[in-house]
Formats: sequence, C-alpha cells, structure tokens
Amino acid sequence: MNKVIKLKNRPVGAPQNSDFEFTKEDTPSPKDGELLLEARYVSVDPYLRGRMMDQKSYIEPFKLNEPITSGIVAEVIESKNENFKKGDFVNGMLAWKEQQTSNGEGLNKVDADKAPLSAYLGVLGLTGLTAYFGLTKLGLPKEGDTLVVSGAAGAVGTIVGQIGKIHGCKVVGIAGNDEKVEMLKSKFGYDAAINYNTTEDMTSAIAEVAPDGVNVFFDNVGGTIFDAVLANIARNARVVLCGAIADYNKTETPSGPRVNTTLIKNSVSMSGFTLRDFQSDFQEGIQKLAGWLSEGKLEYEETIVEGFDNIPQAFLDLFEGKNKGKMVVKI
Amino acid sequence: MNKVIKLKNRPVGAPQNSDFEFTKEDTPSPKDGELLLEARYVSVDPYLRGRMMDQKSYIEPFKLNEPITSGIVAEVIESKNENFKKGDFVNGMLAWKEQQTSNGEGLNKVDADKAPLSAYLGVLGLTGLTAYFGLTKLGLPKEGDTLVVSGAAGAVGTIVGQIGKIHGCKVVGIAGNDEKVEMLKSKFGYDAAINYNTTEDMTSAIAEVAPDGVNVFFDNVGGTIFDAVLANIARNARVVLCGAIADYNKTETPSGPRVNTTLIKNSVSMSGFTLRDFQSDFQEGIQKLAGWLSEGKLEYEETIVEGFDNIPQAFLDLFEGKNKGKMVVKI
Repeated sequence: MNKVIKLKNRPVGAPQNSDFEFTKEDTPSPKDGELLLEARYVSVDPYLRGRMMDQKSYIEPFKLNEPITSGIVAEVIESKNENFKKGDFVNGMLAWKEQQTSNGEGLNKVDADKAPLSAYLGVLGLTGLTAYFGLTKLGLPKEGDTLVVSGAAGAVGTIVGQIGKIHGCKVVGIAGNDEKVEMLKSKFGYDAAINYNTTEDMTSAIAEVAPDGVNVFFDNVGGTIFDAVLANIARNARVVLCGAIADYNKTETPSGPRVNTTLIKNSVSMSGFTLRDFQSDFQEGIQKLAGWLSEGKLEYEETIVEGFDNIPQAFLDLFEGKNKGKMVVKI
Repeated sequence: MNKVIKLKNRPVGAPQNSDFEFTKEDTPSPKDGELLLEARYVSVDPYLRGRMMDQKSYIEPFKLNEPITSGIVAEVIESKNENFKKGDFVNGMLAWKEQQTSNGEGLNKVDADKAPLSAYLGVLGLTGLTAYFGLTKLGLPKEGDTLVVSGAAGAVGTIVGQIGKIHGCKVVGIAGNDEKVEMLKSKFGYDAAINYNTTEDMTSAIAEVAPDGVNVFFDNVGGTIFDAVLANIARNARVVLCGAIADYNKTETPSGPRVNTTLIKNSVSMSGFTLRDFQSDFQEGIQKLAGWLSEGKLEYEETIVEGFDNIPQAFLDLFEGKNKGKMVVKI
C-alpha cells in the first residue's frame, strides 16, 4: 500500500496537524508512456499556506480531500516512457505520495553527481530561482548599495544575501535567534545581522547598521519588521516583496502604517512577485546559480527532516522559524 | 510697497489661514544681471503641504517667517540681464510676492501666443509633466488596459485620463461630486467615473466598471479610495503613487490594510515618484504635451481664483476638493 497525504480542512489561522489526512491507496502502476516515481526529497514552503485557502490567486488552490503537491525530487523506479529510464532522478511539482505515476510532463532530470539531490529543491531549485530573480530583476542591486533581507536565515534569505554580496552590496540580515544571526555572518557573509526577537527598537537597530538608508529591501516577512525597514528606506530604493509569512496565518486582513507617503517622498518602488513571472528565464537562473555554486561563491544550508509521515509537521515548523535554510523532508 | 506671504506656523493637521502671514516690504529693484518680475499667475498645489513640515524630504522644507515659493508665471517689468527683456513672460519656482528680483537662473521663457499663460502652470507645466511621466514611465499603459485615476478631476488627474485614452486604455475616474463626474466623462473622455461621496461600496463600484481588474492605478489620494482600487487590482498591474492628499493633513501616521500579500499574489508593482526623478527628460515631456495640445487631443480645466491676497485660501481649498482641474491664482 502507498501512503498519501491529503488536505482535510482549509486551515483557519495557523495550520495544524489535524488539517492533514494520512491515507493509503493501492500502489500505482504506470501505463504506456508513464513512469513510476518514488519520492526521495519533499520540499515544504511557506507559499503552500496560500494554496490551502479557497481564494483566487496566481495558482489554483488545493482541493479538499486531494493530495497536496509541492516540489519533489523522485527516483524513476519503472519507466514506460522513452525519455526517462529506471534510476533517473527527476524534479517537479508532485503529490505528497510515496509513489506516483507521471507522464513525464513538467519533470526535469537532475544530476545526483553534480549536487546533492536535496539541493535541487533549494539553491538549484525554486528557492534559488526565487532569490535570484527577485533580487536581480526587481531589487536591481548596485555596488555599494545597502541590502536588507528579512527572513534572512530561511531558504530564500540565505541565498539572497550571498547574491547581494556578489553584486557588491553591504548586506544586513534579520532573523529570529542568535544562532541564525551567527550563521548569517559566519557562513553566508552577511555584514551584519539583527535578532528581531531580542531587539527592542528595530527601527533604530536598522538605522545603526544602515546609516545612509536601505537601498534594497528583500522582504520575506512583512508585518512590523517590514515597517521598521521601511522607516529606514533610502531615496530611489527598491523593495522586493517575496513573502509575508507574518501575515499568512492572520484570519483578518492585517493593518499597519500606510506606506504611500513614504514611497512618494522617497521615490521608492515596491514590487510583489511570484516565481512564475520569470518562468521563461529559468534556464538563465539555473545556470547562474550552478555557476556560483561550482565556483564556491554560494553556500547553502538545509534543515532535513526524515520520514514521509513528518511532512506536515515540517511544514508547520516553518511558521515557527524552526528551519535554518531550506526545509526538506527526506523520504 | 510690495506684498509678501510668509509661512508663519508649521500647520498641525489641516493648514489654516492663520498659518500664513501677510507682510509688506520695499519694492525691490534689480541689480546688474537681474530682472524685476511681477507675478501674473501663482500655482497652488497639494505637495506644498509637505514642504510646510520640518522633515527630511526630497525637497527642502519651507523656512518659518520666509516667503513661500511655488510655480509662478511672471512678467519681466525691468531687465538688467541680457537673456531677458521687458515684456517677456517667464515660468519658475518663485516667491509669493507681487514683485521680486531674480538673476534669471531656473526661469524658462513662455510664449503667451502659443497657450494662455496659466497653462504653463498646468498642462504645459509641472502638472502636465507629473501626469505624463508618472503614467507613461511608471504606469506603462498598454492598449486595452483598464486605468483607474483617483483625484481624477484634479489638475493631474484630468491630464492622466486623457493620456491614458491616447494610449488606448479604458479610463475610470474617481472624484468627489457629480459635477466633476460629469465633467470627466463629457470633457475629458473618461469611460466611466464614480462619485466617492455618494457611493457606499467603492470596492463593488470599481469591480462593476473594471470587471477584469485594474491594470494601471494612478493614485493621487491614498486612504480608503486607494484600498478600494487595490481590492480590484489585476495581475501584473502597476500602481503609480503620485499623491496621498487624504493623508497629508493627518497628525499621526495613518493606518490601513497591509498591501504586501495583495502585491505578492498578483505580482503588482507600486511606485512612488516625484517629478524631479524625471528632470533630465523634461524637454521630451513638454514636447509631447504641447504636441497633443496643438492636435486637440488634450483638454484642460482650470479653477482661477483672483487676487494676490487669496493665494492661501486657494491652497486651503485644494484639501476640500473645491478645484476642478488646475487651481491657479491670477494676480
């Protein structure tokens, strides 16, 4: 029998284990033209929270009582498709199932010799691409700019900071504990990092490390951390809105200081994006990231949870900031 | 004696007549290289409110007990500068004085035969340029886009809508009374217009006239009108933040719904700007506007108040929406 995880309830507020249902189905077998895949690494990401709600968005909401899908690296264990052979590893948006069939559409082969399989869900996958396109195409970092990254110790943030350094920025990270702050500076080359949980006045703390203002702000968090950075925004700055994890579990539309006058007075642009905006440039992104990785310019960090049954909990832990770098589940 | 209007107090909340001081000084006389100017038309604009506060901004705050400055068309009544002669008309940032001297720096000659003098403060001046650059460089209007303009019946809004039509947009205006709504449709070619003072549910009203969402939002107002338009924003939309007159007189930072998640989910960019961002392209802008004006593609509306002593009141009336189109004071 094959294990499957379905969406049982649409979460209200913070998602809970009871929103997920563990079921079993007959082990599938591939028809002509199909593959049988076995999941090796499953990606859990904050954006999945949005798909659990029944609302118009850039991507279809998950259906109730259907398997959840996310980025997964799987091994081909049987192939009736000439483009793939047994033993290949592939990466794609797949269901939370131990095994599943596929016609091969939307799957990319990945090379286990070039990088660890889990890296294709992180630095060489959607996470790395999100960091690369968001920062370079919208943040437009220039030599000498001060770049502030919130959620800096997360999957995207750890990559953004390093790409910022490659572009000659002074990079400041915001994270939730001292261990993460230390990691940002020692492992990822951040020039400064701030623990928002132990800093009383974030606005002043940012002013101290960014005395000439913040030229590029890559925001994964939203909420009051966003407010504190915006209070230090420089003239002609670019704010890249990648995520707002502080708001995702709010049951009512969150309120905060209006930003309009700040953006006008300082001629600041603020751009929300999702990765699919850059779909046609994915090859460029992957090449850049793989190049930097092989040149040793890009470090990455993973939090690897083991076991299929722990996928939902790993997802829930994202909202507690329990991950350093990319959170993946090894099956 | 020469009348002068100075800033007496920095306004707290809504500016009042008592924030201005009327004084007299000796009539100035020009030295070698200087001109004597007599004000003909004085521009009053919402952005002056910002300069009355003592805060860091893109432009120096006004000094207390010094004359206020704004866009003024003046006549050269005496010239000791070879670049100007008696009878020339010039446009520039000048003081609220009946007469004043100038060394000619920053002044542009204007041609009274090509357009009425007041037009150089409006459609052919900073107002027209603000509309042109904000919409074309940041709003990026495309054929078939739905463009919504708030403060549509104001100086900038009346021009923005028409430039939107020139670019093939469906144009929707938001204004504060039925007369303005009627004017937008009959005189300025707006496809639809909404009176926010008599419309209970602005979000639904906008949804009705923009069923496929708002592709470009040119915002002069901020506040709850901004919220209602943003609730209807289309994927990949551009929000141009030109002004936030609803917020200018607030004594505390105004609060409102956070926009981050909306911008992310819909890949929306939101850009604040001030005209000086486009200073190097002013000639391009003036030529475009003058071209459209002479081709009959651009109408404009003015509210002309008479009398030097009425300059402060004309400024105050902007915040009550008493102007249709550009508010100018004829001296």
